[in-house]
Amino acid sequence: MADKYEQVIELAKRRGFLWSSFELYGGTAGFYDYGPLGAMLKRRVENTWRDIFVINEGYYEIEAPTIGIEEIFIASGHVGGFSDPLTECQKCHEAFRADHLVKDVVENPDTLSADELTEIINKNNIRCPECGGKLGTVYEFNLMFKTTIGPGGKRVGYLRPETAQGMFVDFPRLLKFYRDRLPFGATQIGKAYRNEISPRQGVIRLREFTQAEAEIFIDPRNKTHPKFKEVAGIVLNLYSQEGQIAGEMQKMSIGEAVKRGIIAHEFLGYCLAITYRFLMRVGISAEKLRFRQHMKDEMAHYAADCWDAEILSERFGWVEVVGIADRTDYDLKAHAKQSGTELSVYVPYDKPKKIERFVVKPNMGILGPRFKGKAGKIANALKALKPEELKGDHIELTVDGEHIKLEKEAVTFETVTEEVHGETVIPHVIEPSFGIDRIIYSLLEHSYSEEETAGLEEEKGEKEEKRIVLRLPPEVAPVQVAVLPLLTREELIKPANEIVSMLRSAGILVTYDDSGTIGRRYRRNDEIGTPCSITVDYKTLEDGTVTIRDRDSMRQVRADMSGIADNICGLIYSGKPFKEAGTKV
Amino acid sequence: MADKYEQVIELAKRRGFLWSSFELYGGTAGFYDYGPLGAMLKRRVENTWRDIFVINEGYYEIEAPTIGIEEIFIASGHVGGFSDPLTECQKCHEAFRADHLVKDVVENPDTLSADELTEIINKNNIRCPECGGKLGTVYEFNLMFKTTIGPGGKRVGYLRPETAQGMFVDFPRLLKFYRDRLPFGATQIGKAYRNEISPRQGVIRLREFTQAEAEIFIDPRNKTHPKFKEVAGIVLNLYSQEGQIAGEMQKMSIGEAVKRGIIAHEFLGYCLAITYRFLMRVGISAEKLRFRQHMKDEMAHYAADCWDAEILSERFGWVEVVGIADRTDYDLKAHAKQSGTELSVYVPYDKPKKIERFVVKPNMGILGPRFKGKAGKIANALKALKPEELKGDHIELTVDGEHIKLEKEAVTFETVTEEVHGETVIPHVIEPSFGIDRIIYSLLEHSYSEEETAGLEEEKGEKEEKRIVLRLPPEVAPVQVAVLPLLTREELIKPANEIVSMLRSAGILVTYDDSGTIGRRYRRNDEIGTPCSITVDYKTLEDGTVTIRDRDSMRQVRADMSGIADNICGLIYSGKPFKEAGTKV
Repeated sequence: MADKYEQVIELAKRRGFLWSSFELYGGTAGFYDYGPLGAMLKRRVENTWRDIFVINEGYYEIEAPTIGIEEIFIASGHVGGFSDPLTECQKCHEAFRADHLVKDVVENPDTLSADELTEIINKNNIRCPECGGKLGTVYEFNLMFKTTIGPGGKRVGYLRPETAQGMFVDFPRLLKFYRDRLPFGATQIGKAYRNEISPRQGVIRLREFTQAEAEIFIDPRNKTHPKFKEVAGIVLNLYSQEGQIAGEMQKMSIGEAVKRGIIAHEFLGYCLAITYRFLMRVGISAEKLRFRQHMKDEMAHYAADCWDAEILSERFGWVEVVGIADRTDYDLKAHAKQSGTELSVYVPYDKPKKIERFVVKPNMGILGPRFKGKAGKIANALKALKPEELKGDHIELTVDGEHIKLEKEAVTFETVTEEVHGETVIPHVIEPSFGIDRIIYSLLEHSYSEEETAGLEEEKGEKEEKRIVLRLPPEVAPVQVAVLPLLTREELIKPANEIVSMLRSAGILVTYDDSGTIGRRYRRNDEIGTPCSITVDYKTLEDGTVTIRDRDSMRQVRADMSGIADNICGLIYSGKPFKEAGTKV
Repeated sequence: MADKYEQVIELAKRRGFLWSSFELYGGTAGFYDYGPLGAMLKRRVENTWRDIFVINEGYYEIEAPTIGIEEIFIASGHVGGFSDPLTECQKCHEAFRADHLVKDVVENPDTLSADELTEIINKNNIRCPECGGKLGTVYEFNLMFKTTIGPGGKRVGYLRPETAQGMFVDFPRLLKFYRDRLPFGATQIGKAYRNEISPRQGVIRLREFTQAEAEIFIDPRNKTHPKFKEVAGIVLNLYSQEGQIAGEMQKMSIGEAVKRGIIAHEFLGYCLAITYRFLMRVGISAEKLRFRQHMKDEMAHYAADCWDAEILSERFGWVEVVGIADRTDYDLKAHAKQSGTELSVYVPYDKPKKIERFVVKPNMGILGPRFKGKAGKIANALKALKPEELKGDHIELTVDGEHIKLEKEAVTFETVTEEVHGETVIPHVIEPSFGIDRIIYSLLEHSYSEEETAGLEEEKGEKEEKRIVLRLPPEVAPVQVAVLPLLTREELIKPANEIVSMLRSAGILVTYDDSGTIGRRYRRNDEIGTPCSITVDYKTLEDGTVTIRDRDSMRQVRADMSGIADNICGLIYSGKPFKEAGTKV
């Protein structure tokens, strides 16, 4: 029997959600097309994300190119370290990820070097899974797609492996846009690329995929969040470092988790909360969602804390779909170094602070005559001395390799009190990073259901006894309404077309369908997740009412044709209960 | 003085619409970032396009990868012919477009071959514009960005030069999605790439840009459009082939132009109409828009007709922003050939047709014994003969190079009447193709205005006497409302924040601003095109009303705080006149 993945993909292909790319030319692994319904679903999921991150959190979206220049990815570390270990079969020349091939003989193969992997393959006589041939020496294969900008091959370009770098590189411009005040954030929804060695997991591992990322720049001294109280009560499935060691997931409120120090701080906790809200809104099942903390050895060395949102899929198990990290000042420091530009923020204090400062004043009357041209250098070295180095009877220091001994009188020093109005900080970055394609697949799987329909009134005369329903939230359903004249008769088609026009003018995506029995047409719409269907019948001609049918309950109400657009908008966008859409039939 | 382009770009950079990409690393020609306001403006322009093409015309959007495999671009002709002539300076090694360098000495340099260009450069002693050095031999430089899919360099990939091919390659899937019925269309909004030799026109010529394209597959025997009547009265600035020869533009209704055969047919006329409507909705000035027909020698050899929408820009003159072409069956035939798959549609007739068919029946009783194993081949050759070839006393034919002469009795033939239920056609493609980035720049330029404001009540105490206003249509303005407490006082900030929350819940993009004088804050919002501002003052605390100010007229009305979201939605989305938003102040 087909597993859930196969069922979902069969439906997705047949009805125009997901198609293998370049099918006409035999296809290529790692590429998928969104068909007409898939692209609309994706657009709506992205818009829900925007509603949360851009409209409500105020992290404006930007759009940087997908091609980036080499400097960016040298700074980010992708040129040096964004790679997978590759081994090629000497016989059939198929390429494999070496860490995948040894996963049955060693633990944590992803922590091993290419040399270690080569040794393990040789020692265990691991052969080509395709043809049994001997495998070659393992080497690191860089996963960025490489290209050339302009003629002559002078300028290397890479397709971005993540959208994040676009926000980091624009930091100086963003800082000005937000008028030099922390915290602020920028977001990006767009394509990212990863030239996988040999992707074999369908839409779960793509070479070209869509990310939605936020980079939120915060004051490193203050990781609280002003709206934390609003979300503290949200209970999540947490799979913390400790929990993973103990092998158990915990249900815990975000407030509790931050209080206990399980989640590093409020700001990260808040990001977990809005991630949870987003995933619920687009149709992920709460019980198939958990937040897993990165183990200490798994976390990047610079990260303060990192949590993945993982979604349970029947075939692939727990799949990472979101990463939420406190990346500290790593990215800004890296780009500052590479570009030679300071990337920091001057943060004024609420009121000026008085601070004590130790000041050393070299006596140039002594130093000048004695050291001549070198006196300036020595004076600077003296200024840098600390109080304890000036305690003795003599002052000793080394300038340009020369040891110098001076009498106390060569300097005077004192502690002065100064008024300071602010300080310069390098912001820390909180990064929630979403893999949109995996979320789309997951919500298709979670909303897919098959139901027995034998004996159902509307199924009379239908042969199949199975109803496939995609229980998508109305907010993300690609087709929002189906308009169905009961019969293919001119007098019913006319009002049906009028309804189509009214709904389209209100920006609603409508499908019109007049072929086949009404039961069959309901089915066609159930399996693409259309939340409601409007049927025009002879009663419509008498009293101007139509039938509205609810996808999930299959209940029907009778409502006026006039005002139908407002009625439907209420059902789709405002969570109006179905029974309020009209009178019971 | 700065020209309009400089003024617009200065504003665009300063306020976060458009930034040079990779500025931190010195920038690279041909790449621009959309900043926070630019990306939102772009998103809204794209959504307006979707509202027209997807929601209202029913041409579903798809999303194919930006990386394409080689076969696609061999079929499309891009591997062979998507190039510009390049010449490199022998001294400074700068690259130039050869056709641009000779444009002062020859007409139509874009029609010349590389050899012809080399000759002209040599004959006219044209030198490097940068350093005066000698220029090298001209060669064709392919403008696709090239990369490699997977390891080992085995599979070549290209960044797509247009989104169109994604729809052509998906034709078999799309045909099924639309249940085998013509006409149908698919659209795509996404990145496309063109590795320009040396782009020098800012945002007008990008190496990475955004296209919105529709590929509409129609029955080649019927190029009418069911909704043509609705648009026939729209009057456009037409610059037809004849008009260009005469050097004059004509104002003409689309109905008239189709009737006179200036526009090839209704379907193309309809596409011009919805293009016009789209450009008007997003804020292009009608008088700075014209539709120019491709001249015969400029049109692709396969095209039946082609019109560009051109927008007048102060620096660049008339700039092409949309191309609308009848591409006939060129694309589907090319992919059918390359893939070896038939790309056609079986179109059933309304009622079966009776047709007469000439049938030849070989007499196997004669052929069999005489020709043995070769009899089958000869029979097939006989079946293919036409009536006139069977007129003589003998039948003569050549099979496998052998001349054969047969007596009449070797065949019988007759004309039979058959009932035919339909026929197979290769659809023609109507392609409206939009350059989104150029449209964004154009609408910024067209909506940019500077006004004298000396003596204005709200400007009291301001030094500048110039108001910059971006008169964007409310539908596309990035920030939709500014909420401004009159003074930075707790009692005013609180209701202002409540208003912000109410508006955000309704999906409205709000900016909150409490720094500087109220006049200054109005100005900040005028120059980014925010259609209205809401001011909270002490009267708000008394009677729950706020001031709403209109960007364009600077008029103010007083309205209730409760219901403010609906009120603002009406102004932004439904074209409610401003005076109906409240009572005159």
